[in-house]
Amino acid sequence: MPVADLFNPRSVALVGATDKSGWSISTLANLHMHGFAGPVHLVNPRGGVVHGERAHTSLSAIPEPVDLAYVMVPTTAVLPVLEEGAKLGIRSYVILTAGFGEVGPEGAAMEAEIADFIRENGLTVLGPNGNGFINAAAGITPYGLPIPPPLLRGSVGVVLQSGALASSVLAFAQARNIGISLLTSMGNETTLTVTDVMDYLVDDPATTSIALFLESVRNPAEFARVARRALLAGKPVVALKIGRSTIASHTAQAHTGALVGDDRVIDAAFRQLGVLRVRSLEDLIITAGLLAETGPLPGRRIGVVTPSGGASEIIADRAEDEGLELPSFAPDTVAKLEQIVPAFATVQNPLDVTGYILIDRTLLGRALEAVSADPGIDAIMLLSEPPRTAPRDPAATLALYAANAKRITEAPVPVIVVSNVLTDVTEFGRAVQEETGFPHVAGGIEHGLHAIGAAVRWSEYHRAALAGEAAGPPPAARHVVGDVARHVEGATGVWAEHRAATLLADAGIPMVPSEPVHDEDSAVAAADRIGYPVVLKASAEGLGHKSDIGGVRLGLTTPDQVRRAYREVVAAATAASTGPPVRVGALVQPQRSGGVEMLVGVVRDPGWGLTLAVGLGGVWVEVLRDTALRVLPVGADEVRRALTELRGARLLQGARGTEPADLDAVADVVVRVADLAQSLGERLESLEMNPLLVAGSRVEALDALITWRG
Amino acid sequence: MPVADLFNPRSVALVGATDKSGWSISTLANLHMHGFAGPVHLVNPRGGVVHGERAHTSLSAIPEPVDLAYVMVPTTAVLPVLEEGAKLGIRSYVILTAGFGEVGPEGAAMEAEIADFIRENGLTVLGPNGNGFINAAAGITPYGLPIPPPLLRGSVGVVLQSGALASSVLAFAQARNIGISLLTSMGNETTLTVTDVMDYLVDDPATTSIALFLESVRNPAEFARVARRALLAGKPVVALKIGRSTIASHTAQAHTGALVGDDRVIDAAFRQLGVLRVRSLEDLIITAGLLAETGPLPGRRIGVVTPSGGASEIIADRAEDEGLELPSFAPDTVAKLEQIVPAFATVQNPLDVTGYILIDRTLLGRALEAVSADPGIDAIMLLSEPPRTAPRDPAATLALYAANAKRITEAPVPVIVVSNVLTDVTEFGRAVQEETGFPHVAGGIEHGLHAIGAAVRWSEYHRAALAGEAAGPPPAARHVVGDVARHVEGATGVWAEHRAATLLADAGIPMVPSEPVHDEDSAVAAADRIGYPVVLKASAEGLGHKSDIGGVRLGLTTPDQVRRAYREVVAAATAASTGPPVRVGALVQPQRSGGVEMLVGVVRDPGWGLTLAVGLGGVWVEVLRDTALRVLPVGADEVRRALTELRGARLLQGARGTEPADLDAVADVVVRVADLAQSLGERLESLEMNPLLVAGSRVEALDALITWRG
Repeated sequence: MPVADLFNPRSVALVGATDKSGWSISTLANLHMHGFAGPVHLVNPRGGVVHGERAHTSLSAIPEPVDLAYVMVPTTAVLPVLEEGAKLGIRSYVILTAGFGEVGPEGAAMEAEIADFIRENGLTVLGPNGNGFINAAAGITPYGLPIPPPLLRGSVGVVLQSGALASSVLAFAQARNIGISLLTSMGNETTLTVTDVMDYLVDDPATTSIALFLESVRNPAEFARVARRALLAGKPVVALKIGRSTIASHTAQAHTGALVGDDRVIDAAFRQLGVLRVRSLEDLIITAGLLAETGPLPGRRIGVVTPSGGASEIIADRAEDEGLELPSFAPDTVAKLEQIVPAFATVQNPLDVTGYILIDRTLLGRALEAVSADPGIDAIMLLSEPPRTAPRDPAATLALYAANAKRITEAPVPVIVVSNVLTDVTEFGRAVQEETGFPHVAGGIEHGLHAIGAAVRWSEYHRAALAGEAAGPPPAARHVVGDVARHVEGATGVWAEHRAATLLADAGIPMVPSEPVHDEDSAVAAADRIGYPVVLKASAEGLGHKSDIGGVRLGLTTPDQVRRAYREVVAAATAASTGPPVRVGALVQPQRSGGVEMLVGVVRDPGWGLTLAVGLGGVWVEVLRDTALRVLPVGADEVRRALTELRGARLLQGARGTEPADLDAVADVVVRVADLAQSLGERLESLEMNPLLVAGSRVEALDALITWRG
Repeated sequence: MPVADLFNPRSVALVGATDKSGWSISTLANLHMHGFAGPVHLVNPRGGVVHGERAHTSLSAIPEPVDLAYVMVPTTAVLPVLEEGAKLGIRSYVILTAGFGEVGPEGAAMEAEIADFIRENGLTVLGPNGNGFINAAAGITPYGLPIPPPLLRGSVGVVLQSGALASSVLAFAQARNIGISLLTSMGNETTLTVTDVMDYLVDDPATTSIALFLESVRNPAEFARVARRALLAGKPVVALKIGRSTIASHTAQAHTGALVGDDRVIDAAFRQLGVLRVRSLEDLIITAGLLAETGPLPGRRIGVVTPSGGASEIIADRAEDEGLELPSFAPDTVAKLEQIVPAFATVQNPLDVTGYILIDRTLLGRALEAVSADPGIDAIMLLSEPPRTAPRDPAATLALYAANAKRITEAPVPVIVVSNVLTDVTEFGRAVQEETGFPHVAGGIEHGLHAIGAAVRWSEYHRAALAGEAAGPPPAARHVVGDVARHVEGATGVWAEHRAATLLADAGIPMVPSEPVHDEDSAVAAADRIGYPVVLKASAEGLGHKSDIGGVRLGLTTPDQVRRAYREVVAAATAASTGPPVRVGALVQPQRSGGVEMLVGVVRDPGWGLTLAVGLGGVWVEVLRDTALRVLPVGADEVRRALTELRGARLLQGARGTEPADLDAVADVVVRVADLAQSLGERLESLEMNPLLVAGSRVEALDALITWRG
């Protein structure tokens, strides 16, 4: 596996090594300091002594085989180095050198040239314009910036699209006593990409969770594939993806629908893939660190054991934010706890065993044991942390932590230890953890509860993914219309409502009855057949938002009203038409009343592809932009979940006197729409039903709009 | 000032000192270790040697005057100690002893007894059931738990309603290199309360910001008074107030209106008082620490200077969350920066000067200088932090930080330094700050931006309060009806709509015309006078929510419809009546159409008093609970601000084709309602107009409900 070879070289050459470069100094020092066992060769075209060692004048001059070349030569010299290396059989490279695509067209041309060479010669190259990697698990650290000791080995894999953040991530992980397996600074991702490294980490036995800093998801399909693999493998992926702000997403907004800003699609896609999105570097590392230790949690019912009333109350507030449940303890547990805690303590969840732990140092541990036997608890949050400074009698402290570590290990449910506040695990604290086996401590109630909430959510995604996998691969989207090619061929622009409605009806989607008419008389005749009151809408190829131009008349109760409405809507549509002359007619439909109006649409996101938006109509979408998104394909379960996420979900449950909606019936129609959209091929731009009227189990689209690309 | 005397004793007696008590050991050690200069006397009834010193058998046996007695005797012995001390003229006490109100009725009785004694004898007593205080500014630390050195002296005053959190707060403040002026652990607040200590801190020259941990606001009126004083004095108050979760606020919800949960009133009250509410201990200390240093910031336009693209993007996202503006730099600034940063850098706000700072260590400082001269920037956020470990050449590091410290001090706008991630300021980092004058560093982008956002908001509250003060005291609520006493006297239960509407109309509040009728004929006659369509509503004393019982008929267009409606609503109201028989009639009103329906209500919160709720009607209030609250009194400006906070605010601005509402006209009516509510005295329970119909500048209440206590 070439990527595995890149990260596990037995010998390294530093090409462009020089005493004048901080990068050169740091890379060599890192390799020496953090345990690289193989030879490190220095290459400098002028030879001589570099970093106190004799330098070779070229890669060819090195008498031994080289597994990895770390390249820090001038920009124009990079390609010659690759050429020389390839000839020598060197397959793996890190290119630190900058000056490529990131500086302008000239650099981009050079970058394209090396990309071609890399591909043609089957090389594995990290960079250019990146600092390299830190394989902490194996002690291999070809990395261009100082790595402050100690480099803690652990099981969090870190992939960064910003090299400048690596130092902060390293410092923070160290402060939290969180070890990493591999850290990569991706640089320009000219050939080797974030998803390639993720793929490696999914298979890497040293890695149990993956932390990403992402500026962009370059290849959503590939990202989805790898994320799904990670989810099934039980390796949580936590991501800090920037670009939430309107400034950052401004460009993105311009080329997708207003409801489906790029960033909201990413939120939806990440959730569907079980990728945990966080908003801070602290949450990134603390969440990945926690998940690296716990693995899947069995459920969201948390028992909380603390020595502080104030902390318990903060925890109650934050647990609710995170959707965690703090159930009452079982009667047996209460009885046991009442034997343990002081008389003045109140036995409840969260449990405050009181400051009496200063007098009886076994109190917290015994309470933990009692709570961990409670049958209604899925996991325990224990408020505790290693000491910051060495006490006068370290032996007693060590014994205490060893006893609690044993209780934690032997507890029948996972025990997650969280500190009160986010301060560094000190050197002494780290020593206590190492010597006593006291587990990982999540940093502070604030970030710790975020991490527990994320772990619970991820565990649910993981179980659902495994269940889905056990049930066999998801069926491809059904081709819900007989002759798809007939519809797609030559389709262009905006389809008139009637044509769109016919297609939808063919696909089994319930549409309101609708008669196309082309004069006042046929409109009245249609209204007579349908029965009053009726709706009359302008109809023409290319006519999209009819109500915006005054092309819709509701609640018509007499033939005269129908005639006048016909004249008005046709005039309005004709006046609004800007393209070549089209035949303008109208549609007559029965006037529906009651029920809840929904919006169901599928639009094509440039990166993630067809994306479903469901929401309630009216103010919900116009003022609140209250929609739930899902990247297709999507099943009925997922659609039902999306419906419950809406802020207006209570209306579907029958608030304000509406009939409760049959969510199965709604989901069935929505899935049909999604399947249809997928059947219609790459030319489909968007497909929208607004409104979709829902009254109990009656679901009916009152309008339809299909737009094609080109 | 007795509270000042409590916190500044020249001599201390530890009453109940014993080698067997950790509290006794810690208190004495703290006093000795953290600089208390006066004598510390030990008192133990058995005399002998305690903590290696000779103990006195009683307070009376001490040959010198005692300023403060720190009491840790058994519960039943507390009162005798106070009695002895009072006789000796000792005015100040800390009572560590527990076992009072917090353990049950017997303890509560003892607590009441000592409370009486304290008040009768004019003593100043912190506690009982509290650990004491840490006057770091003066080096006076009668405090019962270990204080880990170094105790950093600074200007944040900390008041805690949970003693167990004090250690976490101290540890975190120390880790952030944030010094405190005074920390108090309040205990049971039997006599001395949080607001007493706040009052002291507002006047304490050593304190520039105040951090509170609150379980409850015991006396809202007093809290409001002190908070207002702090705001005018320019001392920011930051509060972590727990009880946000439904579990915690369950009891509270039971006795106030469903819309006005206690916690939402606290949100509203705090904002009106300029108290910054936070949700974590980290934000509490980081925000108070930042504000202690910066004082008021001139505005929300922030220039950001960083050495990292990734960090810049995280900052852009978080700045938007916090409502901060990151304006483009002025052309002059851009020109200057282009001379400073490397060619491959992009000059924009946030500015990434790039990792080139590793080569040119003056780069960040020079960029800071250029940005600080930008005329469109109110303050600068500089991403930097003191080093974690001592480099080989500390002199160069010190020189660099000294140079940047000078630039920061001399900048024409405030410069706020923020670190990438929240890690401890190490001992070396603290030394660098001390030696070079490098300023306070907010801990990490996540919490740092929260703190900057809070500082900007507080600065606006502060300026508004000063402006309000300059304009003279706010006028008392106008007595908007002539003879208030007439209305209040004997008023009870729920008033029939007509009676409520008459009172509101008398107060100058525009009410829809309304005719009370008592039979079908008079109903038709009224409808004829008013003009069709009309509305008909059941009317009876004690009848509240008419529509819930089917007591309202809308859009009646014929006399027959009016007759039938009259029969139906009277029957419905009669059937729904559960109390003694009342006369049921009806009201006839014109049917209005168009406009936006609002809800305006005033309800009495048990703690904060009359509280105004404004919102839009319909789904906004029923499904989304979208209301903005204000504790009365309130002016028109504040009402307009409340209206803009609504999630449905866009509807008032004319979204969905509605006529834009005249917010001045709405605010005028709302202020009249508020003034009326305040005029009606303590018996008023609630006063509600639902709906208040707003169409452009036409504002009219279509319904009114007044409820009285008792």
